[in-house]
Amino acid sequence: MDLHSIYDASLERGAANFEALSPLSFVARTAHIYPEFPAIIHGDLRLTWGESYARMRAVASALVQRGIGKNDTVSIIAANIPEMFEAHFAVPMAGAVLNTINTRLDAEAIAFTLAHAEAKVVLVDPEFSELVARAIHMSGLTDLLVVDIEDASFEGGHRIGALTYADLLAEGDPAFDWAGPAEEWDAISLNYTSGTTGNPKGVVYHHRGAYLNAISQIMTWGMPHHARYLWTLPMFHCNGWCFPWAIAANAGVCICLRHVRAEPIFQLIRDEKVSHFCCAPIILNMLANAPAALQAFDHEVKAMTAGASPPAAVLEKMEAMGIAVTHVYGLTETYGPSVVCAWKDDWNALPPDQRATRKARQGVRNLGLGDLMVANPDTMVPVPADGTTLGEVFMRGNVVMKGYLKNPSATQKSLRGGWFASGDLGVLHGDGYIELKDRSKDIIISGGENISSIEVEDVLYKHPAILEAAVVARPDETWGETPCAFVDLRAGETASAAEIIAFCRERMAHFKAPKAVIFGPLPKTSTGKIQKFVLRERARHPEQGGGSAAATQDLSGTTA
Amino acid sequence: MDLHSIYDASLERGAANFEALSPLSFVARTAHIYPEFPAIIHGDLRLTWGESYARMRAVASALVQRGIGKNDTVSIIAANIPEMFEAHFAVPMAGAVLNTINTRLDAEAIAFTLAHAEAKVVLVDPEFSELVARAIHMSGLTDLLVVDIEDASFEGGHRIGALTYADLLAEGDPAFDWAGPAEEWDAISLNYTSGTTGNPKGVVYHHRGAYLNAISQIMTWGMPHHARYLWTLPMFHCNGWCFPWAIAANAGVCICLRHVRAEPIFQLIRDEKVSHFCCAPIILNMLANAPAALQAFDHEVKAMTAGASPPAAVLEKMEAMGIAVTHVYGLTETYGPSVVCAWKDDWNALPPDQRATRKARQGVRNLGLGDLMVANPDTMVPVPADGTTLGEVFMRGNVVMKGYLKNPSATQKSLRGGWFASGDLGVLHGDGYIELKDRSKDIIISGGENISSIEVEDVLYKHPAILEAAVVARPDETWGETPCAFVDLRAGETASAAEIIAFCRERMAHFKAPKAVIFGPLPKTSTGKIQKFVLRERARHPEQGGGSAAATQDLSGTTA
Repeated sequence: MDLHSIYDASLERGAANFEALSPLSFVARTAHIYPEFPAIIHGDLRLTWGESYARMRAVASALVQRGIGKNDTVSIIAANIPEMFEAHFAVPMAGAVLNTINTRLDAEAIAFTLAHAEAKVVLVDPEFSELVARAIHMSGLTDLLVVDIEDASFEGGHRIGALTYADLLAEGDPAFDWAGPAEEWDAISLNYTSGTTGNPKGVVYHHRGAYLNAISQIMTWGMPHHARYLWTLPMFHCNGWCFPWAIAANAGVCICLRHVRAEPIFQLIRDEKVSHFCCAPIILNMLANAPAALQAFDHEVKAMTAGASPPAAVLEKMEAMGIAVTHVYGLTETYGPSVVCAWKDDWNALPPDQRATRKARQGVRNLGLGDLMVANPDTMVPVPADGTTLGEVFMRGNVVMKGYLKNPSATQKSLRGGWFASGDLGVLHGDGYIELKDRSKDIIISGGENISSIEVEDVLYKHPAILEAAVVARPDETWGETPCAFVDLRAGETASAAEIIAFCRERMAHFKAPKAVIFGPLPKTSTGKIQKFVLRERARHPEQGGGSAAATQDLSGTTA
Repeated sequence: MDLHSIYDASLERGAANFEALSPLSFVARTAHIYPEFPAIIHGDLRLTWGESYARMRAVASALVQRGIGKNDTVSIIAANIPEMFEAHFAVPMAGAVLNTINTRLDAEAIAFTLAHAEAKVVLVDPEFSELVARAIHMSGLTDLLVVDIEDASFEGGHRIGALTYADLLAEGDPAFDWAGPAEEWDAISLNYTSGTTGNPKGVVYHHRGAYLNAISQIMTWGMPHHARYLWTLPMFHCNGWCFPWAIAANAGVCICLRHVRAEPIFQLIRDEKVSHFCCAPIILNMLANAPAALQAFDHEVKAMTAGASPPAAVLEKMEAMGIAVTHVYGLTETYGPSVVCAWKDDWNALPPDQRATRKARQGVRNLGLGDLMVANPDTMVPVPADGTTLGEVFMRGNVVMKGYLKNPSATQKSLRGGWFASGDLGVLHGDGYIELKDRSKDIIISGGENISSIEVEDVLYKHPAILEAAVVARPDETWGETPCAFVDLRAGETASAAEIIAFCRERMAHFKAPKAVIFGPLPKTSTGKIQKFVLRERARHPEQGGGSAAATQDLSGTTA
């Protein structure tokens, strides 16, 4: 500030005209205006905004009474149940940082997370009590306060903690006068990335980014007041793409869901008039392939899906069913989706395959993201908007993480030259939309030519017998590398490797077509990402691979 | 920050993860994604977002070339024409501060504004060229760069400047690489309040507040992408309630309008498919009373109106016509409306008069406002939520002004105790909604009892013969003060003072009913506010008053 300027002199910030941005303000406002409106639906349980806000304040108060405060980590491992939603508010109201843990990790990974996050408290869903008990034992943490959540939607599990969530509610003050963050840069949550190798990295979000990305999601989607939001996306995933906060901002309804299956999803869409949900593309696939009898509902539903857009056939089925799909893209490091395939109405007139091609683009920055570019990662010079020159995707702005917890070297590597380096490779189209082509490490370099494994996979997915496909590089004495395809056929379908290779050669440059095809289910991470590093190993040693590995198909995972 | 905390150490701000909030980012994004979409409609003129953004950049570049930079004031006096919209972006892109001047001020007031704002440049609409020429002469400013806007929608006026807006466009670079503000606290605009007495005060807005209030308007209204917004509210008024920036954020369409009359409004609603407009209640009144033949259109339109909500009859006509009215409240000091009568669907089942009573409440804080209270102005203790205890309305948060330009004493008086003191009196209802009762200085104290002049006016407005009414205090030897009513009858209607007083006594406590009624048109400020200080004078000296003063009825003014 230039205090000699007429526009700065005696015009300082004060309590009257400045407050730190925080998504906590959303719930205070909504509970004030709409106390009688529904906030949470979970089976037969109904909580209003007034009730839920009182519960959040009580839990926050109980945590404070127990010595939890600023920059303390409170972990939670839970399905998409009310306590998980409430923790997104209660924990930061206590000044603490919410660490949601992926429920599909093994005990060792959970132990690593608790220890690395220096967790003071962990809230535990009964479904995961045994797993977490083992993890705590492995973690070596001795001062951890373990709180059992009791939930009617899960039978089983056992008490492993010193007290229950109900105890916290009972000992806290439902009128607790919590304070917002001292600075909007203060941490609000901690999300570990599910790296395919090595230890996970702890991505730190701040109040400002959480506020702005929640708003941005609403703006991007054109989400109306009182939207009825179904929790098909795990809240442990980038804080549910910031939707717990977005729902509070819009006075919407959280419709909880423990297990992501077609039948309860359609039932909730019908019975609870779900208007919006987010999910991985594989969920849309599941819904599209569900029995027709299940699919009956008579209102419009909007779905947001991240990463690879579903194939044209799935999109057509979604549209026919009354589900409008928005395709978004982001990373844990950008608070979830920060890029959107902003749809233009005149594209609706295109034939289905061209519509699907448009929809498959990752798109443009959403309102909260400062800037987006595809550039040469060495020179940081943007690629031409020609739709073909490959570069790395970079983002910058207020919805880029603070950095990685206790990992300055990874932070510096990731936030460099004024940008966040996503590690994803893509192109920039003439209309300013970006399209991903690959992860940096997934590119195949054959005879000096770059081959995008995604491009080859796109062709494979067009083959009617193929359910899932992944392509990786295989070392080759002549070419350096060649594409090797791993393919899982649909039940009852058959296709030979030669047929599939010929199918690809008809549809793309011959050098890009796979030189080998290996059949069998694909190995996946706990969040549903295909484990390409496993496939790369198999491609090197095909005699040990090919269809023998067990796949753990996980329907709730996402790529953002 | 506590750099010993794991959540702050090595997690500093940088260019990758922090940028100053500014509404300028909206237009850059929209022009990138939707360059071919319509941005501005002005008669036969059509400009796309690509074209308009290029014009903004060119003007910004020309200003910079001419030495304009950070914290320089660029004034504009213009109707709601494209150049007025573009100035909301071009001027801050040059780093400068936009000062929009009320077009209905006299030359003396304009001269005061230009001089007090230390304007370096003034952009002049031809409709006001003569007026501004006189004002410049009176201001004593010698270095002022005067730029004439040429506009086909106005015949007449003459060149008074050194160059034209077209010249600025021609000399600037349409690809100008502008920079956002160094800090989000930097000033973006300067709006003078039309005080009823004394010199106007210059309210300074910053980039952060403009960003957040624009977003808040969209969220509050549930405004969709590509909304088609009609400019019935002057952009010189609180920067059009931040809607120039909101429209850019939502890739909407600015539909310009030089003169606010029923015929062109209905024509544009019909021909340009207007979806949203803002206006003073009096405009709604005008539309409701327009010939039925004009009122034909077949899509839903949303209107936002500020201050006093229109009477039940007008609201009913609006609804019947297909115009849904949202009632908002705010002041120049809060970037325009920052309080909204958030509507609840179950209120639609109420009878019309009860619906109007609900709608007449000013309501609750909008998403951008940090907090709102009605409190005792001496103790700052909030009033009980009983709907009757009168207190002053206070606001706080990011959409409260930086302060008054070069007026620290007024700023300190206004921003005190951590709140902005609005000067408005109101009550808090049991459901958390506030309702204005009066301006502090408009309260009437009769026999020790407070009488709200608004309450008396509400009753007067129910009289079928009354077109407009205002009530002020008249000194009284017995009671201290008594209410004195000024009444303007509808054309062709008659009513006696005795009849009107009896009408009031039937409907309210007798001590609140007016003791005197004076007939004739009501004096108004240039923005349409009734000049109660004039009426107070007349009430003291009724022999000089009563209907003789000329009223300048101004249809574009608003109370926010």
